[in-house]
Amino acid sequence: MTLNSADEGFAAQLRAKLPEAVLRPVAPRYLQEPRGLYRGQAGVLALPRSAQEVAILIATATAARVGVVPFGGGTGLVGGQIAPDGPAPLLISLERMTAVRSVHPQENVLIAEAGTILADVQAAARGVGRFFPLSLASEGSARIGGNLSTNAGGVNVLRYGNARDLCLGLEAVLPDGRIWNGLTRLRKDNTGYDLRNLLIGAEGTLGIITAAALKLAPIPAGEGTALIVVPSPEAALKLLTLARDRLGETVSAFELMHRQGLEFLAEELPDLRQPFASPPEWCVLIEIGVAAGLDPQAALAGLFESAQQLDLASDGVIAQSAAQRDALWAVREQIPEANRRVGSVSSHDISVPLGVLPEFIARAGAAIAGIGAFRINCFGHLGDGNLHYNVFPLRGHDRADYTQYGARIRQVIHDLVASLGGSFSAEHGIGRLKVADLEHYGDPVKLSAMRAIKAALDPHGIMNPGAVLRG
Amino acid sequence: MTLNSADEGFAAQLRAKLPEAVLRPVAPRYLQEPRGLYRGQAGVLALPRSAQEVAILIATATAARVGVVPFGGGTGLVGGQIAPDGPAPLLISLERMTAVRSVHPQENVLIAEAGTILADVQAAARGVGRFFPLSLASEGSARIGGNLSTNAGGVNVLRYGNARDLCLGLEAVLPDGRIWNGLTRLRKDNTGYDLRNLLIGAEGTLGIITAAALKLAPIPAGEGTALIVVPSPEAALKLLTLARDRLGETVSAFELMHRQGLEFLAEELPDLRQPFASPPEWCVLIEIGVAAGLDPQAALAGLFESAQQLDLASDGVIAQSAAQRDALWAVREQIPEANRRVGSVSSHDISVPLGVLPEFIARAGAAIAGIGAFRINCFGHLGDGNLHYNVFPLRGHDRADYTQYGARIRQVIHDLVASLGGSFSAEHGIGRLKVADLEHYGDPVKLSAMRAIKAALDPHGIMNPGAVLRG
Repeated sequence: MTLNSADEGFAAQLRAKLPEAVLRPVAPRYLQEPRGLYRGQAGVLALPRSAQEVAILIATATAARVGVVPFGGGTGLVGGQIAPDGPAPLLISLERMTAVRSVHPQENVLIAEAGTILADVQAAARGVGRFFPLSLASEGSARIGGNLSTNAGGVNVLRYGNARDLCLGLEAVLPDGRIWNGLTRLRKDNTGYDLRNLLIGAEGTLGIITAAALKLAPIPAGEGTALIVVPSPEAALKLLTLARDRLGETVSAFELMHRQGLEFLAEELPDLRQPFASPPEWCVLIEIGVAAGLDPQAALAGLFESAQQLDLASDGVIAQSAAQRDALWAVREQIPEANRRVGSVSSHDISVPLGVLPEFIARAGAAIAGIGAFRINCFGHLGDGNLHYNVFPLRGHDRADYTQYGARIRQVIHDLVASLGGSFSAEHGIGRLKVADLEHYGDPVKLSAMRAIKAALDPHGIMNPGAVLRG
Repeated sequence: MTLNSADEGFAAQLRAKLPEAVLRPVAPRYLQEPRGLYRGQAGVLALPRSAQEVAILIATATAARVGVVPFGGGTGLVGGQIAPDGPAPLLISLERMTAVRSVHPQENVLIAEAGTILADVQAAARGVGRFFPLSLASEGSARIGGNLSTNAGGVNVLRYGNARDLCLGLEAVLPDGRIWNGLTRLRKDNTGYDLRNLLIGAEGTLGIITAAALKLAPIPAGEGTALIVVPSPEAALKLLTLARDRLGETVSAFELMHRQGLEFLAEELPDLRQPFASPPEWCVLIEIGVAAGLDPQAALAGLFESAQQLDLASDGVIAQSAAQRDALWAVREQIPEANRRVGSVSSHDISVPLGVLPEFIARAGAAIAGIGAFRINCFGHLGDGNLHYNVFPLRGHDRADYTQYGARIRQVIHDLVASLGGSFSAEHGIGRLKVADLEHYGDPVKLSAMRAIKAALDPHGIMNPGAVLRG
């Protein structure tokens, strides 16, 4: 598909149809992404204020055969928000569409425009005594439209699901420039194909989400947090089963951490208070949110006692206050920052079926050892089978000494994940970084169905060209 | 799209490629549906035993331009399983593909072939100490492939979601005869478009589901059931909010019943024990499943006391035994049978946003009264905003006296539902019965996207022709 550049002539076409303030100079932040892997081209930047303005932008782009790159909070980690090559695109940032259009506490529904920052959605829900469960490190700058377009995950997926599971309806502009009004608040609606879930996770390649009806949850009557030392990943998995058998869906987070992560914290963030005098080989952070009438601390204490009797736990801390809870979570939440300071040779956002997770950890460690001497920080959302499996230089060395190993490590990890029925991208998506991985590891029948759907809905290939599928 | 008939020549093509036993004479049950609205044409019947055999059938049909009608348990209520006109189709029944391929209790996953009867899936889960939440009246004969193809609902949607929410992965044969192997057990996998949810709810028009990876849940540590008399639908809605604020997602069912339903039961099923001496105007059946450490009867008693103080409840029964629980559920579950015996003038499977549900009930009653004198039995899944709103003759009259009213009533109800942002098909789907409704009430942009997707994946229009979209 040959596209044209978003040049001055194209900008003039847009100016003729839209208010002056919609087009803006392209500031550098629209051309960067967090890991610095890509550098975008300038093109034309538009900041629409309504779905109607988005529709005019898309209709004009499709008529002119100009590529469109949607821009949310810019926090994606796979380059979905950046067009580094090809003709210069029209960048559409949703940052002026930040209205929470309505809140329906009785229905547990909130309708927000796509540019609303995730933390603002959470705050709007709290403001009416409700809870919006999507929670992730970048929630202070990520925007809900981007969260949905990438089907974001985070720490509450075990209980509440990912972004897909938290959305009831969408308003979106399709590649022909028409507005789909699918902003339903219905819990049940079996009237035709699931266009909502097709757009969610499509990373802007099938249209632009302009607003969403989001599911809220009741705020749990009581919450509890514990950090429990486990002898092995197998034991962690058994502890998860025990916890869910006793406490059901009230288990809202179950995060695995390895000694290496705690040691990185001690090295890089020495002011952070460590929960144990000497870092255990493995520990899990458990959070529960329970119904009225159940004491969460007592429930966690009962779980810990049972786990001890079964040799699934040797030590542990149960938070007795909000401050203690925050301190336990800080350990988990600061690990990515410590990782960043150490500097990884290769990072992996993988998932495997829960039952083979211990096997993955054992075999991956052996395979990496076969390549060379590294430090491995394996941590993440055990309850979802989703690990952030990151490989680092030995102490005293720099990642620059290891550049020759990155591709080899990535291939070994991704091959192992594939052989275990896992995914090379559990929650970050494909973007531009993993297009070749998708072609290599993806099911060929699914890939050809995806290409047919893309060609049917976006025949000129204008939407986020080069992301997910090669143009 | 012109299709050819599945005639003797086509059958001979299939016989050349498949074992003898795959083709069978067309028994009458494949040409009937529960309400007798359609009568199918015979064509050719195939009973494949594997996805590979399904693939051969579909590839042969697509090459010969013969329509294919997938047949699950035959329990659908909108004619999706019956081709009453057009060229005679190839009927593919999945009834020989009933293997539970694997069960993974630690992962809360079960993999079943599409022909497995829903009750057998539930039993397989129970057999490993787990719970498969999909539950509906026809579970003894409905098959899981059909449940997924129609995105079935039922009584546990409030807590566990509909069929879509209970599926992790699919194996399916696409209209080109290729097998998509998407049978993942992963909780997180952001690698490309959501083909799974596109096939779920497509009612066999985009391919045939041959197997599914299903989500299981822990069996709740304790369960409780109550039937509570409420003064109005508004009060029922407030009681739902109160229940969820206190008990969160442990509320697994919240069913509304009107006096008319209890009176129908007394008329038609007099042996059924009624819970109240005189039937209340409105009551709700509440079920909770709670974590270890919480007494479910005490939790329901606490809820009832709070509700009484807020004038949301005037009377109630809390089941003290499994037998009492079954007796309360029997009241709810026998209402459809009583309805069937009375014989409705018009039945409606509608949903509206929860907050406008009382307004819907009031306005629908007034609108029906403007048409004539009827008895209205309004009941259903209040927690999901999903009502079965059924209109019946006055006592002593027969539905045959009212045939002139059916279309008028349907239009009035569906217009009202549409004006309130609701759905004319909450859980039953489109099939062949509601194709015109979809064209009339559906969003035109969504409809054209659906047609584009259908044409892209099934260019010859062989899959379930005439269902969902007009051929």
